[in-house]
Amino acid sequence: MRDPILLTPGPLTTSLATKAAMLHDLGSWDADFNALTAEVCARLAAVAEAGADYACVPLQGSGTFAVEAAVGTLVPRDGKILVLVNGAYGERMAELARVMGRDLAVLDFGETEAVDPAQVARRLAEDSRITHVGVIHVETSTGILNPLPEVAQVVREAGRRLIVDAMSAFAALPTPARELGCDALVASANKCLEGAPGMGFVVARKDALLSAKGWCHSHSLDLHDQYHYLQQTGRWRFTPPTHVVAALKAALDQFDAEGGRPGRLARYQDNCERLLAGLEGLGLKPFLPRAIQAPIIVTVHAPVHPRFSFPDLYRRAKAAGFILYPGKLTRVETFRVGCIGAIGTAEIDAAVDAMGRALRAMGVL
Amino acid sequence: MRDPILLTPGPLTTSLATKAAMLHDLGSWDADFNALTAEVCARLAAVAEAGADYACVPLQGSGTFAVEAAVGTLVPRDGKILVLVNGAYGERMAELARVMGRDLAVLDFGETEAVDPAQVARRLAEDSRITHVGVIHVETSTGILNPLPEVAQVVREAGRRLIVDAMSAFAALPTPARELGCDALVASANKCLEGAPGMGFVVARKDALLSAKGWCHSHSLDLHDQYHYLQQTGRWRFTPPTHVVAALKAALDQFDAEGGRPGRLARYQDNCERLLAGLEGLGLKPFLPRAIQAPIIVTVHAPVHPRFSFPDLYRRAKAAGFILYPGKLTRVETFRVGCIGAIGTAEIDAAVDAMGRALRAMGVL
Repeated sequence: MRDPILLTPGPLTTSLATKAAMLHDLGSWDADFNALTAEVCARLAAVAEAGADYACVPLQGSGTFAVEAAVGTLVPRDGKILVLVNGAYGERMAELARVMGRDLAVLDFGETEAVDPAQVARRLAEDSRITHVGVIHVETSTGILNPLPEVAQVVREAGRRLIVDAMSAFAALPTPARELGCDALVASANKCLEGAPGMGFVVARKDALLSAKGWCHSHSLDLHDQYHYLQQTGRWRFTPPTHVVAALKAALDQFDAEGGRPGRLARYQDNCERLLAGLEGLGLKPFLPRAIQAPIIVTVHAPVHPRFSFPDLYRRAKAAGFILYPGKLTRVETFRVGCIGAIGTAEIDAAVDAMGRALRAMGVL
Repeated sequence: MRDPILLTPGPLTTSLATKAAMLHDLGSWDADFNALTAEVCARLAAVAEAGADYACVPLQGSGTFAVEAAVGTLVPRDGKILVLVNGAYGERMAELARVMGRDLAVLDFGETEAVDPAQVARRLAEDSRITHVGVIHVETSTGILNPLPEVAQVVREAGRRLIVDAMSAFAALPTPARELGCDALVASANKCLEGAPGMGFVVARKDALLSAKGWCHSHSLDLHDQYHYLQQTGRWRFTPPTHVVAALKAALDQFDAEGGRPGRLARYQDNCERLLAGLEGLGLKPFLPRAIQAPIIVTVHAPVHPRFSFPDLYRRAKAAGFILYPGKLTRVETFRVGCIGAIGTAEIDAAVDAMGRALRAMGVL
């Protein structure tokens, strides 16, 4: 039987070419692997439109590890970070800053509003101790697109530094690091790049990385050290996920063949439009207004019907070959359907058809 | 052309069955993946001969991430850890404890001696503030086998707690957690288990994990949180390396088919004997006395000959399909040859033959 299609925010359905790249064992200290690392990092920095002032530093682990590494490495021990929160990933960035003992402020916009740059500007004007701002580009817990260029502008104008969790946006939505003037963009291999999970990376200003010696709370997550060692030796400090790096190289080849970021975004936008239209056809209501809906994942109100249960819908959709995603909101019953990964409108149509059949079989439609 | 055989301490040459398990995309929140995680963890705990008082907690990233997680989670903020050092991995454990701000003591045995349990006992008697002891089972920088049962005994008798970095030993040498009475055994997927790199794990006492709430310096590396969340939901807290987990399950199937830990150890011992004999036949001298040579990786003295250079030998051996490993010692010129991974005596013989041809072509033999 075929593997189910993953309509989630990642790990995603990847192409066979990407997975087949993992059929090789690479020596982690060998020159061929060093060259692979260097190539992947250079290509990721190019996707970030980063320029010569930036470097891409890879890190083992999930995307959250890379976010924690960026905050822990780049915010000095006596710094203060303002985290802009409108969902679970913003809360997570605040939590990891709190655990590592950085001075922390939070601006919370609730679960349904995009981050408001004007409020950010006011908060920065009020608190001169804030050195860094952290923002989530696409808040995957709902799918909200936050206004990154406008946030970056107010942070620049206030003379503070910006750390962007671009996890679910990178390689689809524009993240022009140099133009944004951010200190760091954080993302992972297994979202819009359509690689395998197991590594994140941080595209960071070289001067910020170089000045951060000894700031990190964690040896494993120290990006200054990782960058320095990579520069000196060409190697990762600790065992790299060699197969995952090879898969990312293959995924980048396919990304380029699709026309790079604009090509990938166009496919995801088509997927998202088709998904929204299909859900509407089933009488399902998206949670977000269109203006702040990123073409990454769609949060849907659960139907108000006594025979609806998400576990039942999930089970039926899975039997038809589609993995849906539960909701992550605290006050409203929702579920989520992703539109990213190595899938097109044919898979979206088939998924909508399968959801329709499931809802009819449940007696909800 | 075939991929080179990796004669390194990991990532290793793995079987095609292990790599082929990565040709599937799994939903990281799906019940099938949760069941896979639970199965893998239960089987790892069984390999550790852990019993019901222990749990296996998986962690994203390299083995070092898991060592840092174990120390950061299990040593209280006002605790003190004594790290037993006889090589680079002991130094690394001390360094990560220092970076996270734990009170630290180091007993250094140099690069050529095994850890001496009597000295450990004296140090514990002298310093009542030491709460935990950290030890490296097989110090991969030389291949030294440290006397784990004897170290565990003196730590138990002194009423202190033990954290074992069993990275290069786990699944080959005996690591009976319950009998040792250690708080934690740390290892990774890509050493003697012959899985793919990208995850480590900690087999830890449940009571130690449960009492460690809020102790960890890092959100990503907090094993208490990871364990609690796994128990509550069946899921990893953050994106797991799904393909690597699938590969580990396949690797465990092959481990069982080989006769489990004794079967794997027997093959590695055969490999190591054959390698030592072959190196001796080439006039190469092992760095360690046999009594403390673990059957994992052999450190070899570089030939004292004007025409010998390790980069030249490396290049020639690689052209013949074998990846050797540089030395990691500070005062003596050495290189290393691993004897673990999905290889047998045929591959060891071929590697020795290739080294011989290379040394003759270099004019060293």
